[in-house]
Amino acid sequence: MDKTFVIDEDRKHRLGFEEVIYGASKSVALLTDILKDYSDKKTNVLVTKLQENKAKILLEKYKTAFYDEESGIFMLSAIDNNEEKAARIGIISAGSSDIGVAHEAYYTLAYMGVKSKIIHDIGVAGLHRLLNRLEEIKSFDILIVIAGFEGALPTVMGGLLPQPIIAVPTSVGYGTGKGGETALRAMLTSCANGISVVNIDNGYGAALSAFRMIKLLEKK
Amino acid sequence: MDKTFVIDEDRKHRLGFEEVIYGASKSVALLTDILKDYSDKKTNVLVTKLQENKAKILLEKYKTAFYDEESGIFMLSAIDNNEEKAARIGIISAGSSDIGVAHEAYYTLAYMGVKSKIIHDIGVAGLHRLLNRLEEIKSFDILIVIAGFEGALPTVMGGLLPQPIIAVPTSVGYGTGKGGETALRAMLTSCANGISVVNIDNGYGAALSAFRMIKLLEKK
Amino acid sequence: MDKTFVIDEDRKHRLGFEEVIYGASKSVALLTDILKDYSDKKTNVLVTKLQENKAKILLEKYKTAFYDEESGIFMLSAIDNNEEKAARIGIISAGSSDIGVAHEAYYTLAYMGVKSKIIHDIGVAGLHRLLNRLEEIKSFDILIVIAGFEGALPTVMGGLLPQPIIAVPTSVGYGTGKGGETALRAMLTSCANGISVVNIDNGYGAALSAFRMIKLLEKK
Amino acid sequence: MDKTFVIDEDRKHRLGFEEVIYGASKSVALLTDILKDYSDKKTNVLVTKLQENKAKILLEKYKTAFYDEESGIFMLSAIDNNEEKAARIGIISAGSSDIGVAHEAYYTLAYMGVKSKIIHDIGVAGLHRLLNRLEEIKSFDILIVIAGFEGALPTVMGGLLPQPIIAVPTSVGYGTGKGGETALRAMLTSCANGISVVNIDNGYGAALSAFRMIKLLEKK
Amino acid sequence: MDKTFVIDEDRKHRLGFEEVIYGASKSVALLTDILKDYSDKKTNVLVTKLQENKAKILLEKYKTAFYDEESGIFMLSAIDNNEEKAARIGIISAGSSDIGVAHEAYYTLAYMGVKSKIIHDIGVAGLHRLLNRLEEIKSFDILIVIAGFEGALPTVMGGLLPQPIIAVPTSVGYGTGKGGETALRAMLTSCANGISVVNIDNGYGAALSAFRMIKLLEKK
Amino acid sequence: MDKTFVIDEDRKHRLGFEEVIYGASKSVALLTDILKDYSDKKTNVLVTKLQENKAKILLEKYKTAFYDEESGIFMLSAIDNNEEKAARIGIISAGSSDIGVAHEAYYTLAYMGVKSKIIHDIGVAGLHRLLNRLEEIKSFDILIVIAGFEGALPTVMGGLLPQPIIAVPTSVGYGTGKGGETALRAMLTSCANGISVVNIDNGYGAALSAFRMIKLLEKK
Amino acid sequence: MDKTFVIDEDRKHRLGFEEVIYGASKSVALLTDILKDYSDKKTNVLVTKLQENKAKILLEKYKTAFYDEESGIFMLSAIDNNEEKAARIGIISAGSSDIGVAHEAYYTLAYMGVKSKIIHDIGVAGLHRLLNRLEEIKSFDILIVIAGFEGALPTVMGGLLPQPIIAVPTSVGYGTGKGGETALRAMLTSCANGISVVNIDNGYGAALSAFRMIKLLEKK
Amino acid sequence: MDKTFVIDEDRKHRLGFEEVIYGASKSVALLTDILKDYSDKKTNVLVTKLQENKAKILLEKYKTAFYDEESGIFMLSAIDNNEEKAARIGIISAGSSDIGVAHEAYYTLAYMGVKSKIIHDIGVAGLHRLLNRLEEIKSFDILIVIAGFEGALPTVMGGLLPQPIIAVPTSVGYGTGKGGETALRAMLTSCANGISVVNIDNGYGAALSAFRMIKLLEKK
Repeated sequence: MDKTFVIDEDRKHRLGFEEVIYGASKSVALLTDILKDYSDKKTNVLVTKLQENKAKILLEKYKTAFYDEESGIFMLSAIDNNEEKAARIGIISAGSSDIGVAHEAYYTLAYMGVKSKIIHDIGVAGLHRLLNRLEEIKSFDILIVIAGFEGALPTVMGGLLPQPIIAVPTSVGYGTGKGGETALRAMLTSCANGISVVNIDNGYGAALSAFRMIKLLEKK
Repeated sequence: MDKTFVIDEDRKHRLGFEEVIYGASKSVALLTDILKDYSDKKTNVLVTKLQENKAKILLEKYKTAFYDEESGIFMLSAIDNNEEKAARIGIISAGSSDIGVAHEAYYTLAYMGVKSKIIHDIGVAGLHRLLNRLEEIKSFDILIVIAGFEGALPTVMGGLLPQPIIAVPTSVGYGTGKGGETALRAMLTSCANGISVVNIDNGYGAALSAFRMIKLLEKK
Repeated sequence: MDKTFVIDEDRKHRLGFEEVIYGASKSVALLTDILKDYSDKKTNVLVTKLQENKAKILLEKYKTAFYDEESGIFMLSAIDNNEEKAARIGIISAGSSDIGVAHEAYYTLAYMGVKSKIIHDIGVAGLHRLLNRLEEIKSFDILIVIAGFEGALPTVMGGLLPQPIIAVPTSVGYGTGKGGETALRAMLTSCANGISVVNIDNGYGAALSAFRMIKLLEKK
Repeated sequence: MDKTFVIDEDRKHRLGFEEVIYGASKSVALLTDILKDYSDKKTNVLVTKLQENKAKILLEKYKTAFYDEESGIFMLSAIDNNEEKAARIGIISAGSSDIGVAHEAYYTLAYMGVKSKIIHDIGVAGLHRLLNRLEEIKSFDILIVIAGFEGALPTVMGGLLPQPIIAVPTSVGYGTGKGGETALRAMLTSCANGISVVNIDNGYGAALSAFRMIKLLEKK
Repeated sequence: MDKTFVIDEDRKHRLGFEEVIYGASKSVALLTDILKDYSDKKTNVLVTKLQENKAKILLEKYKTAFYDEESGIFMLSAIDNNEEKAARIGIISAGSSDIGVAHEAYYTLAYMGVKSKIIHDIGVAGLHRLLNRLEEIKSFDILIVIAGFEGALPTVMGGLLPQPIIAVPTSVGYGTGKGGETALRAMLTSCANGISVVNIDNGYGAALSAFRMIKLLEKK
Repeated sequence: MDKTFVIDEDRKHRLGFEEVIYGASKSVALLTDILKDYSDKKTNVLVTKLQENKAKILLEKYKTAFYDEESGIFMLSAIDNNEEKAARIGIISAGSSDIGVAHEAYYTLAYMGVKSKIIHDIGVAGLHRLLNRLEEIKSFDILIVIAGFEGALPTVMGGLLPQPIIAVPTSVGYGTGKGGETALRAMLTSCANGISVVNIDNGYGAALSAFRMIKLLEKK
Repeated sequence: MDKTFVIDEDRKHRLGFEEVIYGASKSVALLTDILKDYSDKKTNVLVTKLQENKAKILLEKYKTAFYDEESGIFMLSAIDNNEEKAARIGIISAGSSDIGVAHEAYYTLAYMGVKSKIIHDIGVAGLHRLLNRLEEIKSFDILIVIAGFEGALPTVMGGLLPQPIIAVPTSVGYGTGKGGETALRAMLTSCANGISVVNIDNGYGAALSAFRMIKLLEKK
Repeated sequence: MDKTFVIDEDRKHRLGFEEVIYGASKSVALLTDILKDYSDKKTNVLVTKLQENKAKILLEKYKTAFYDEESGIFMLSAIDNNEEKAARIGIISAGSSDIGVAHEAYYTLAYMGVKSKIIHDIGVAGLHRLLNRLEEIKSFDILIVIAGFEGALPTVMGGLLPQPIIAVPTSVGYGTGKGGETALRAMLTSCANGISVVNIDNGYGAALSAFRMIKLLEKK
């Protein structure tokens, strides 16, 4: 039985970014095969939603690889993101439980070469926490807004701020909030104008959506 | 076939309020029978969610009856609510489309002898509209907060205000907001503390929930 | 990457109660950081829905801390609740499987300084168990009514008793009752008047809802 | 194109009852064809859920036919049900809006030759209405219990009474109760033992389920 | 905190059967307390859906207790069911994966003193398996019909057989069949007449429903 | 604003069949424009799910056009299907209410030049109706099996017959069967092997699926 | 009763665009009041999803107003959009039934002063229609991609094109596609990277999301 | 208690293929019993969806048995599939995570004696991967097309290729894609014509559906 898997090598040319590996449903054996390709070519690669037990095995093989436990992001080599240029994208989270999704967006952007900054824990139950930081938030070109439970934060921000807003619902919550469906639907139904939404827990997709805008800005 | 229907005449004694007639699924014939009972006894009665075509027929029969088109509230005699005492309950609506549910709460409370005030159209997409009226809203004993679409208003108010808050989702919206299920689930999943929720479009139930609290206050 | 989390320190002033820590989705590391703040300030703090394995580690660190296995409630110091004053809030459960949610409401109220009493296991399948205790139940100011399966208890109580009733659906059940959605919807759809509802398994939210009413009573 | 439709003429022999015509989705033309067959053979036939506009046309054709507006039941000749024998089946409804489903069960049983009695409007929001009639209800062999909204009545009756109970959810209600799904799920999830359930608004199915039991009793 | 749980001791008198213990959501500690009561009184008791790990601990304590791994049924003393009287209730399963639910019905009936017989594995994908045993199946008073996947067996049997049929959907299946919801809805929507349905995997409830009919037969 | 719509003229070449017009959501004006194109070229065209009010207007314009009220099928010229060649495809319906979907499949096949035969009303509630015609049904190359309510017919046929079976759920039913979702899921979950399924009410899609098989047969 | 509704007059200042009127759920009376305000101030205003019967009445009052039947867009004065500057935003639709949503996006952008171009009917069932126009589509800054049924078009375009893509699901379809939920979920679940999504039929929201990006571009 | 399970031994005669064992829900004990039957008769047998822990035990017993970890397929003896005849069925997968379902289809066909070929990883996010292999894909008689996430691949292939297409949704994905429901509904709602669909992850069912067509071809 033929088992050749096909990397979309032309993607960078078409879209401006490389193919990324979805780690959650792949076996260590398959991931090892794929990573070897990249390692041999001495190019970095991004793996998303990699479970900790699988990451440990891969980290033993690739001593200089990077893994973030909160988000499951794995890269063959860590990205240096400490340079002093200003962050163009603000990643805003409603609660500290949203940290994994925030990190997924952050490291994806870093891998794509885009500087961002995370602002944690300014959900609408304590509105002043958001209002206090409004000036700082206004300075970003694009906002990625992450929330679980009832997902109200993007709506409130959408009424206060003029930038493009990409809303990310998270699966944080229980009962009616379990699985993130309520936050997702609330964001799609938002009475605030011009917010767009990505899949539940999809920090990676939000980063790519922001990246497409950044590319457009750079083209101008 | 026996067709006797049973009025719960003891309810006032047990609960402090009379049985109320759910009008939406009753025929004009049945409603006429029931209203005759009350009319003969010269007591007022409250009918909820009465459709306009049925209301017209009943208004012809009972010339002094009252009907509100927005909410479908019908009473055998109108309630005089203009007295100068202060409103104890604030009925806050997110958008002007929520007017029917707001009226249902308002007239139910009036029928129960409780003064309330409606504040329209201060949804979170324009946050300053809410913040501008915060002092006035603080003066109410109890808040009934009504919202369709993503239903974020009770969450924001719950983070700003200490009173009992009864949240009412409405069926205003389309797509993912159609039917009010998203607003309902968002309110139940709220990250704000101590908000309780009633059925979609149930302004009547919110009024009764507030009425139970008022009775408790009066007992003290 | 900035990892500062923001405590809503103004909440007590705005709402009359402190911020509470949702334990279920936080790592032991993060919880340790947060608890240290409170421990240093020698103030108590409430953590909800804390899993047993995480609680064990924290209990080793904080020898005088309190943990309730049924509900997952954790506090830095136990609340003394044995004083002789009468309970103002009745916490009524339909079945013995609802005990965890009942405890969550009980300890939350205790932490807020409010005395309550739990009455277990008087669900409607054996109606006389409820009817036998009706007089006692009438003596409470506010009722928190907890039920899984079909969630009929609040409806029956709402028809018998005049107090404010906060209904809490639980995730006890299987098949059509799995996850608590049926109990939730039944409570929201209740034909009894003026019952309000909180999220599935949300004993904490019911306690806070009752606390808002108690504050209102005390203001008068 | 062949358009012959097939009547299940053997059903009476196999199951003890004739095939019944589901009227809701058939055109007047098709119904006319089918009824002609029965009319020619001078045998009665039962049509269920027939809409009023279609019934009117058929009533003009068959002057001695019977039609009940509440339930949409149609028969070529009315059933005489006034005889003095005692009703064996109690049809209990929670609210007056459930009348259509109660009638569907009643007339189906009558058509099958079984005497029943309807007791209207004893839902659990006014529990004494049920308790007052408990002795009468105990006298029936089998109970068909009909309820919309949260559907709690069968649960309460199942805890009080030992007979076979067939629960019928109705589509009466709005918001979370719309369409009858909540009542259905509540009845299936009932904590009371040994209640069985039929489809939403399916008074006909409940009658047939009772009829199967009656046949069993008669065999003994 | 008061922790008294209330046994419904009057149930036998009202309904003809004792209260039964739902084992799935109770701790070993609580179950131990409850079983002690029965053991002290030297009466048997039925526990349903008891997980294997909990059963093992209880079996060590009660050496003469009975536990069935397939169904999770636990009794303080085994029921002798080998007597030669004929089975009155046929328990019919569509596939061998439905064995647990079939056993739950079987042992519940045995505990109630009613003889039944299980016929395994005659689902409609091999129709002749059912047709071959039709004569035997006709001999039972009542049929409990159990099926997972698409749940078609009760429909086919309902068209062939005149007895009361209690349909039990099971959670056997994957994809669209996962959790049993499809089998449940198919049974409720059945085009066959007079089938009634209980909750998913509820072999116990089906047994109790049959028991109510048996009691009625015995009364006659 | 450019309003040019694009006909997929290459489809016949790629797939062996022309583009077909979905009529339900197009205005009369747009349909008129599209039909004019075909009329001018003197080629026939198939329109599906066309509402009666719109069909009437178009029939006035195109005097030789064909319209079937049951299915909403419209063609510029009727297809002569009376020739004596044997039907290759059997269209089997469970109940007479499924007639519209059966016709949609029938006329689509006729338009594609494939002879089929409809066998009405042999649902599983009267199994002998199916068994009586088994030999005839065996003679078809391919079976399209149509059912509403619980959708059990394809499962039973799949266990009896070796041909390719395309199952079509219909939206016939009420309560749990409303909209056809139950029939759809039951067919997908079928315990019978090798049945494939198309969208609810999609007689057209079933015909095209059969057509693809016929083309394959002809190629051989 | 106070009936003052509150226009968010500060919105232009905060967000760069005026408040827009959601027309679907407002009465003609209320709309007349609101439009009078704008008419008196001689400023234009945008009303969305206005039903035809209500539009006719308003068009009689405001003779120079503009109304588009496909989308329900209403403006006090028509926007002149014929200027020769190039369109910056491409509005791509999968089928001709998506025309209403495409128009809603188009006129909203026009009202905001942004030139766009609609390309109709290039859905993936005829892939060459899309491939043929790829060069033209590459020239737009931002893409709004509209599709009903299974909603695959944005996924395919997202794999071919590097621009920001805002996907809009439509409620075009029947059976499993009814209401647009399937298209919505497919777009959110897309395997293509960096697509963001708005509510079903929300052409207006997609336009606003694009407008936020345009504003960002202009700021640079 | 009788525990005889019934093998459908006549199935081969009726349908052309043997009964297959669904392994997921059967205990090792039961599987051992069943396999012994086949082993004694020295005939091969196919078991589907067998979990790894159970397979290990059975592999110890049957040393020459075959087990595929990706799909859970188990056979008493491996099938030799290397012969040089051309594959008649193309099994096309969208992503490498779909490998288990592809294998299930592949080995089922092999067991039935039908040669197939798997083509991995040509999902629509990189369209050229599909277009590059179009000629090869055209050569197959029948296509089984497997996709998770948004499930767009069958739609795109259905627009390009004329063969029978059996679409298989997989449970690969998270958030809105979790469990495979989105891919399932997208495939059923496909705008491409004549695609039919089987249950989520049902590679086995797709193989049987293809097998029915192959039998039909062979008959000709």
